Amino acid sequence: MAAAERPETDFPMPIRIAVDAMGGDHAPAAIVAAALSAVSESDLNVRLTLFGPLQTLTEELRRQEPLGHPHIDLADAPQVIGMGESPVKAVRRKPRSSIHAGLTFHREGRADAFISAGNTGAVTAASLFMLGRLPDVERPSIPTYFPTVCGKCLVLDVGSNLDSRPEHLLQYGQMGTAFATYVMDVPNPRVALLNIGEEPAKGNDVVRTAYRLLSRATNIRFIGNIEGRDIMHHKADVVVCDGFVGNVVLKLTESVMTALPVLIRQAAATRQLSAATKEHIAGILRDVARRFDPETYGSCAPLLGVNGTVFVAHGRSSESAFKTALRLTARSASAKLTNVIGRLVQHAA
Amino acid sequence: MAAAERPETDFPMPIRIAVDAMGGDHAPAAIVAAALSAVSESDLNVRLTLFGPLQTLTEELRRQEPLGHPHIDLADAPQVIGMGESPVKAVRRKPRSSIHAGLTFHREGRADAFISAGNTGAVTAASLFMLGRLPDVERPSIPTYFPTVCGKCLVLDVGSNLDSRPEHLLQYGQMGTAFATYVMDVPNPRVALLNIGEEPAKGNDVVRTAYRLLSRATNIRFIGNIEGRDIMHHKADVVVCDGFVGNVVLKLTESVMTALPVLIRQAAATRQLSAATKEHIAGILRDVARRFDPETYGSCAPLLGVNGTVFVAHGRSSESAFKTALRLTARSASAKLTNVIGRLVQHAA
Repeated sequence: MAAAERPETDFPMPIRIAVDAMGGDHAPAAIVAAALSAVSESDLNVRLTLFGPLQTLTEELRRQEPLGHPHIDLADAPQVIGMGESPVKAVRRKPRSSIHAGLTFHREGRADAFISAGNTGAVTAASLFMLGRLPDVERPSIPTYFPTVCGKCLVLDVGSNLDSRPEHLLQYGQMGTAFATYVMDVPNPRVALLNIGEEPAKGNDVVRTAYRLLSRATNIRFIGNIEGRDIMHHKADVVVCDGFVGNVVLKLTESVMTALPVLIRQAAATRQLSAATKEHIAGILRDVARRFDPETYGSCAPLLGVNGTVFVAHGRSSESAFKTALRLTARSASAKLTNVIGRLVQHAA
Repeated sequence: MAAAERPETDFPMPIRIAVDAMGGDHAPAAIVAAALSAVSESDLNVRLTLFGPLQTLTEELRRQEPLGHPHIDLADAPQVIGMGESPVKAVRRKPRSSIHAGLTFHREGRADAFISAGNTGAVTAASLFMLGRLPDVERPSIPTYFPTVCGKCLVLDVGSNLDSRPEHLLQYGQMGTAFATYVMDVPNPRVALLNIGEEPAKGNDVVRTAYRLLSRATNIRFIGNIEGRDIMHHKADVVVCDGFVGNVVLKLTESVMTALPVLIRQAAATRQLSAATKEHIAGILRDVARRFDPETYGSCAPLLGVNGTVFVAHGRSSESAFKTALRLTARSASAKLTNVIGRLVQHAA
């Protein structure tokens, strides 16, 4: 079995995370900085192994912290997979990449989790190849946070899986429930199916069948169909949909925050406003925009359903965003999220 | 052939519209008021026949305009189909409804168009049953306007057709082109396919095949794939998608305008604002909200692809909204939109 578990001990052992130090727009500087910051947090008991070309990492670590840190190790991975590379080709052609090396480390049980801010497609492909799926999980999925009027909800799938079948939608509900409960601290999360109406008979064949499967599942709290308008009003904690629909929804929502300032400026231009009022409005818009910024509402997500704990952080991750990602990764590993998912999905099969 | 055309004459003849006077939340009062207002407009040369229970209509017309109007006729249709009724059942069980009677009038060539603010499903089902589809059109579709930073674009389908096939998506592009060009006054409208990425190979099987069909069509201006984030930035004039996706997108966008004031209030609450500034902000929000209000950006749409000119107005239509709907209906009939669509779709077949 991949990603072997360590025996339980009476002493809290640090969570060991394999880190792709070369992934993302600000790598390796931001990744190394986040790592140094994370190991210094008193409430975050982690031990990190950074993967990348050894000389590059050694120099970067020395530049930032000449003495290094006892909880940060460096491991050589001479190849780097670029953000724009074809995932499948990159995974085949670069077996010594930081993604491969980190995942191998995790698979061998030398780390409890793997995290990367690099090419999401490549991380997904390599994880499937190297860790495999959990028994019974048909389609691993990366959920995303979605900003709402009172926080955030979890939406999955948002693009990993197009043409999802009803059983996949059921499993998204189960995997989302596990993550929301054990990592997002939402007790007994409400799971809803994204549809074009509330009645069970609404929608296409796939969602109608998914409705039946979700209704029958005894290990999740399915509250029925919700419509597009309900997501932002937080009618559910976990929203389940096909990856095509979820991706369109996600990008549309992001665009609201780029279109909104334009609309507000257009409306404001017809009024006589004082400089102070304009400044207030700009400030309020910035505050609202911040809630829609991935840095705020969550810039990393787990690859749910693979046989291991794998996190994907946003390619634009700053030091602080990546540190938050490290914290969630540690939390997921500590909660043994993979086992929870394995049990939830098995139970339904 | 249904909806027979009249011969051309040198004198501009009024456009004759059959009107369901019992459809919508404010019927018959708002419908009768809109009719009286429309026939009084000097630039709107229409003759209207209102369908509904004769006594009800007679009383309502007499109440609003004791002398009546020479361009408004009343026609008896004793049955009324409610907003909540099952469309197919209602159409079967109420053959003497205002929807049936009005459509029959249109089919017989005694009106150039039919309009209803009633049960959309029933209007669609009755239109398909009584007028039929245009030759070669596989799936009639009701487009919707979508507010953008610089006006509005047309999105179709938004819920009439779930599980659209690639050929349907092609035809949505052609029908949308006809409506945008001849009724919305958008010359040479840009047609785009809603997808999860810009590259032709992106998306599920249906959209990939649709991309090829749309690329090959010589009678539309296909600009390729667009993503959810591009709609509101008006990257296309006509956006083509499956009805399931379109419906989710539509409702999500509507929700933005209900969630936004909440988000703004939350952000404003953390600041010390003067009463005047608060009033300005509330006013700006009202202005922005108005752009997202169906009454502003378009509260009616044609049922494209049936063998006739059929308009569906929003159930909440006020007098002014329904008058706008009458204007667009007259315009579509005058532009012989049905023939244009017939030619565009035939040409591609």
